[in-house]
Amino acid sequence: MGAEARLKALGIELPVPPHPMATYVHAARSGNLLFVSGHGPVRSERITHRGRVGHDLTIEQGQEAARLTGLNLLASVREALGSLDRVRRIVKVLGMVQCTDDFTEHPRVINGFSNLMVEVFGEAGRHARSAVGMGSLPFGMSVEIEMIVEVSGAAVRRLGTRRSRPPRPAARGRRR
Amino acid sequence: MGAEARLKALGIELPVPPHPMATYVHAARSGNLLFVSGHGPVRSERITHRGRVGHDLTIEQGQEAARLTGLNLLASVREALGSLDRVRRIVKVLGMVQCTDDFTEHPRVINGFSNLMVEVFGEAGRHARSAVGMGSLPFGMSVEIEMIVEVSGAAVRRLGTRRSRPPRPAARGRRR
Amino acid sequence: MGAEARLKALGIELPVPPHPMATYVHAARSGNLLFVSGHGPVRSERITHRGRVGHDLTIEQGQEAARLTGLNLLASVREALGSLDRVRRIVKVLGMVQCTDDFTEHPRVINGFSNLMVEVFGEAGRHARSAVGMGSLPFGMSVEIEMIVEVSGAAVRRLGTRRSRPPRPAARGRRR
Repeated sequence: MGAEARLKALGIELPVPPHPMATYVHAARSGNLLFVSGHGPVRSERITHRGRVGHDLTIEQGQEAARLTGLNLLASVREALGSLDRVRRIVKVLGMVQCTDDFTEHPRVINGFSNLMVEVFGEAGRHARSAVGMGSLPFGMSVEIEMIVEVSGAAVRRLGTRRSRPPRPAARGRRR
Repeated sequence: MGAEARLKALGIELPVPPHPMATYVHAARSGNLLFVSGHGPVRSERITHRGRVGHDLTIEQGQEAARLTGLNLLASVREALGSLDRVRRIVKVLGMVQCTDDFTEHPRVINGFSNLMVEVFGEAGRHARSAVGMGSLPFGMSVEIEMIVEVSGAAVRRLGTRRSRPPRPAARGRRR
Repeated sequence: MGAEARLKALGIELPVPPHPMATYVHAARSGNLLFVSGHGPVRSERITHRGRVGHDLTIEQGQEAARLTGLNLLASVREALGSLDRVRRIVKVLGMVQCTDDFTEHPRVINGFSNLMVEVFGEAGRHARSAVGMGSLPFGMSVEIEMIVEVSGAAVRRLGTRRSRPPRPAARGRRR
């Protein structure tokens, strides 16, 4: 079963990718690697989980934030590739938690994201990872996650944001 | 117009790349990806912007620091490649801001860097990105930025620092 | 002399790779790049260096932590590749130090790791790097380091943890 079919079977509907909040794009491809920007717990253009895990949020709320962040990342991957079925593997993840200085359970928080990837992609969802604690994150977001994905097939026309013009041909993953 | 010509048209002169402050190199290439080390706001081997954005520095000063950091990154890219015209695309950026714990405007700070990339490379300067807040950065630097660049053509002889000997042939981007 | 022979000549014995502490794998390969998860100063499944460098630990103790972290990273690389002789180059490193907010000597701490890489791999051990200060790290670890390694040859059967089943064939570095 492909990732798109599995999403449907799980009853998961991906959100609309939020607009980048500054001068950057959601995802940039080079060869067969898709580098996906840091995303956060956003729904309908609003941040749902602000504050520090371990103080303002429980670990469980942090896990929710990480899972929602994962849905937004998948939405941006689908936007870049056309379909999640073109994902070969989730390769590398940096999971960042805005938390108190004495917080120690970052891996449990980021599991909210990692478990979603295994639900959607099976073994291909297992990834190398670092889970760490940040002093602060944009707009007070409690979680920010970026990732590198291995993809199959030729590059699609439009990478990046809905607002940006297509990048130069040479930058669009032409066979190297 | 190539990136080198655009730099000239913009009247931008790149600084001399600062020496790495420890056992590492400015940039390492693998295949068509050039991984560039974390750089900071340094001019003539001196750090120009120390302290925490939101306390010691304004957002505008943080943006200046990010732009200067971008110039240093470009200087190291030119050193590694011979010319910025061999840059195909700025792919992925991690922008780190040393700031107060309640700071929320990291994206605006790192835009000082990202806008420079679009000025110099046009659409190929648009990148995937995370902008985050660090507890501390080396030597009290207010900004540190690392990036991954897609490059064209064969690898040049000498990668890394001016002081290091060339890496082993197998490590120099031989066709994979 | 290959890396395995050099390890022996240096009298260095690699530890058993610690189990991942959550839903992720030690390392994931895509093409000729091996992405290695964040590792810490662990020996026999116990964290040896907890606390903040600059307060609970001296710089020298931080360097020890970084060197031990490097040994654990190499253990995971050997597990993924079968032999360290298949490492072409250490490409990119993110060295994270849990330290006080006024700490400035992150590069010296992470040199404990970087010097080990040069001891083991010679010039191929020199890498692009960022060394930064984190608000907190999992389980109070004083150091966490992740890295990207360029490897030679075909992918081996089993990537990731000792516990995980093999990833899908398409994800195992098949020619792209």
